[in-house]
Amino acid sequence: MQNNPAYKIDLLPPKEQGGTAKEDWVSFIHDLQNRICADVEAADGSARFLEDVWERPEGGGGKTRVIAKGAVFEKGGVNTSVVFGAVTDVMRTGLKIEGSSWFACGLSLVLHPLNPFVPTVHCNYRMFELYNEAGEVLDRWFGGGTDLTPFYLFAEDATHFHQTYNNVCNDFDPSFYPDFKTTCDNYFVNAHRDGERRGIGGIFYDYKRADENLDTCFWMNLGKACGNAFSTAYLPIVERRKATPYTAQHRTWQEIRRGRYVEFNLVHDRGTLFGLKTGGRTESILMSLPPTVQFAYNYQPDPGSAEDELLQACLHPINWV
Amino acid sequence: MQNNPAYKIDLLPPKEQGGTAKEDWVSFIHDLQNRICADVEAADGSARFLEDVWERPEGGGGKTRVIAKGAVFEKGGVNTSVVFGAVTDVMRTGLKIEGSSWFACGLSLVLHPLNPFVPTVHCNYRMFELYNEAGEVLDRWFGGGTDLTPFYLFAEDATHFHQTYNNVCNDFDPSFYPDFKTTCDNYFVNAHRDGERRGIGGIFYDYKRADENLDTCFWMNLGKACGNAFSTAYLPIVERRKATPYTAQHRTWQEIRRGRYVEFNLVHDRGTLFGLKTGGRTESILMSLPPTVQFAYNYQPDPGSAEDELLQACLHPINWV
Repeated sequence: MQNNPAYKIDLLPPKEQGGTAKEDWVSFIHDLQNRICADVEAADGSARFLEDVWERPEGGGGKTRVIAKGAVFEKGGVNTSVVFGAVTDVMRTGLKIEGSSWFACGLSLVLHPLNPFVPTVHCNYRMFELYNEAGEVLDRWFGGGTDLTPFYLFAEDATHFHQTYNNVCNDFDPSFYPDFKTTCDNYFVNAHRDGERRGIGGIFYDYKRADENLDTCFWMNLGKACGNAFSTAYLPIVERRKATPYTAQHRTWQEIRRGRYVEFNLVHDRGTLFGLKTGGRTESILMSLPPTVQFAYNYQPDPGSAEDELLQACLHPINWV
Repeated sequence: MQNNPAYKIDLLPPKEQGGTAKEDWVSFIHDLQNRICADVEAADGSARFLEDVWERPEGGGGKTRVIAKGAVFEKGGVNTSVVFGAVTDVMRTGLKIEGSSWFACGLSLVLHPLNPFVPTVHCNYRMFELYNEAGEVLDRWFGGGTDLTPFYLFAEDATHFHQTYNNVCNDFDPSFYPDFKTTCDNYFVNAHRDGERRGIGGIFYDYKRADENLDTCFWMNLGKACGNAFSTAYLPIVERRKATPYTAQHRTWQEIRRGRYVEFNLVHDRGTLFGLKTGGRTESILMSLPPTVQFAYNYQPDPGSAEDELLQACLHPINWV
């Protein structure tokens, strides 16, 4: 289906929908933020998102929406940003990009549930444009993904999550899900822990741009479809697990695994590090960090325990579809 | 005193003490580890260090000693390592060093007390040697420092800590303490938080090698003197604060500040990152992370509160001597 030009006809280019690609994506991202926040609040049943609108001196800004101390979600954020500016030397070096000015817009989400049987989830969908001095588009690409970080493994949940994105991707190209699943497994890795992943993955892709077969509108529509699938992929798992009784031991294991989440985000995650080192809004970037964490020296779960089963799935990714 | 040749006479070169500089330093580091562990156990009064001896496939190894769930110390480690090997491409690029083989030996210590009125402390003293293919010493340098991370500010404690190292440094050169204090303030910085330091500093120096006035034995002796001062600098503060009553609110603030400690160590600390990315022993390196941590979105202490007073001292370093 990657070579099927019908996609270029069925999914109308944004400018034929009354705006440029940029405006279309910005509008989608803000609408997605509203819809996801409403769904998450409904699933929580208690806490509400608080919004901080911020501006970036060099151009653009964002809407950071944070939920905390909910009945289900101990901490979480659903953030959007629309940022732009001149291409700086740091970007030329760090991102290896050329051009005169740039634009980026995306949604970034992390939810840390209170109950250790409900998995943590992350997603990010973004668009990037580069312009020459005349303001003409030199390049445009999309990236994104959604991944799951459980503390206890339920095959039913893992299969539902991966199957949802498999179905979404198959509407575009049957090669996508296996490709994006592998990319995800290879990205969210604590390389300093012998290849241990932070969770059980999902999908991840980046630098999707126009080529001879596909225009960027195709990739925008993939991003929209994946973004739209979030609530379907994740919230049924929340419903199924949120009332599961748990002990202090379950909670300790959750907090130790959250420590691995911190290690990945602060040591390896390109987006976090690039944001922190180029003057991004620190509180919005570090919204992703879990509310409570434990770092224990050389903690090893008992072989064969439920905790070890999860660890093994992080060390040796499973094909869930 | 930096130009006083008496130091070269008073503090005998190691080989005249019956061994090479390397052997002298290794012996000192292991003895220091024993003495500090004994002092810390005595201050705790309850927990004992557990030792993990590890070997490095490429050469050398270490003794990791961890204390946990003590009456005073919630988590801590006093580690030594003696490591050596061939100079690799990663080292040539990352450390900008030349030569055929290398040797490093040091002690690294972090103590995280339970009581929020007792400060966290870190120190590290190390020696590095480079050799040509014939095994001759091409270069040798020393580095180290000790710094304090309180959660509540007591001028009496801060002054005692800094004054102790001021006195030690003054025995070598009166310019050292102000220099090393500034270097410390400029190193332990969360640059992504507008220059907020992780604590109230101490001393830090690096790449101290022989020059026309000072041989490396001078710098070894400085490292020994600073290492030996640890218990004197820190443990009286522990004694003074360890029985202070505290509330859940004090503990929350401590855990939020510990989050800043995690951010510094994982995002900025050169030693941690180089170790993790070049195959160091992960559990020994990350021993430095606090036992329990909180990450709260955009937490700001009330202006004028005791918490804010500490934060201001981290934002605007104070001269304590």
